Amino acid sequence: MSTATRETTITADPAVPTILIAREFDAPVANVFRAHVEADLVRRWLGPRGLTMEIDRWDAQTGGGYRYTHRDENGEYRFYGSFHEVRPDERIVQTFTFEGFPDGVSLETVTFTDLGDGRTRLEALSVVDSMEARDAMLSSGMDVGVKEGYEQLDELLENGAA
Amino acid sequence: MSTATRETTITADPAVPTILIAREFDAPVANVFRAHVEADLVRRWLGPRGLTMEIDRWDAQTGGGYRYTHRDENGEYRFYGSFHEVRPDERIVQTFTFEGFPDGVSLETVTFTDLGDGRTRLEALSVVDSMEARDAMLSSGMDVGVKEGYEQLDELLENGAA
Repeated sequence: MSTATRETTITADPAVPTILIAREFDAPVANVFRAHVEADLVRRWLGPRGLTMEIDRWDAQTGGGYRYTHRDENGEYRFYGSFHEVRPDERIVQTFTFEGFPDGVSLETVTFTDLGDGRTRLEALSVVDSMEARDAMLSSGMDVGVKEGYEQLDELLENGAA
Repeated sequence: MSTATRETTITADPAVPTILIAREFDAPVANVFRAHVEADLVRRWLGPRGLTMEIDRWDAQTGGGYRYTHRDENGEYRFYGSFHEVRPDERIVQTFTFEGFPDGVSLETVTFTDLGDGRTRLEALSVVDSMEARDAMLSSGMDVGVKEGYEQLDELLENGAA
């Protein structure tokens, strides 16, 4: 599989305050899903390169929640949220907040689609309650974290770790 | 206080897929808040009149969740969600799903404002990811449940129970 098909697309809807992230992986759905729910795997790929991730809570089941800290030489960034639903190999619905801006909350729906031939399409749709909040998310540099995170996930899947 | 000022307003935003519910209560913030987080109080007012509410889980704290069943002579209606944040006397952020339509998830932010003189303004802002989903929520008959529920909450607060 060429790296070209591994492009991460990040699309802001013109009409509603959503962001759609889409990405394909050269690994089966079960592996991509597992890398989203098992803490020991998540901390090896989530977020931009060069950060360490310390997980305080990762209870990836319906009604559970999470809390973690990303660290680099510039400081610490804490995040938390709830798992509204975890539907194995299909769908994860979760909330997300950066602790530095606790009034900002997004609702994220991640869907896992089996493309056949051991490949998977991931779509993550985030919604917030205003266009201003959506545009602030977009301009926060999230694209770097998302793209580098998925590259790290590629590497994890290729190594057979996930 | 006249009942006129207790009108519940339900407003659909023309530009984004949100619903804003606003209501004032003739009771202090602490009492109105407590009636939202303590299961024994919640089950006495939430939802339309004539239903019984059975709570399977009500863990109203940041990172917690809930699950309950409304019953009437026509049947059962199950709901569940997560408490993303519970900020005492100020704010509750939660997700919400009707189990009969599990792919429909809304994110709701309830804010409690002290109006002075022992009165409280409640605002509940719900967001979903499309205008179609928002309009479906509006046409589901939710307004009856919201208005009757808040009338039952008035009665609970007047009785000094909350």
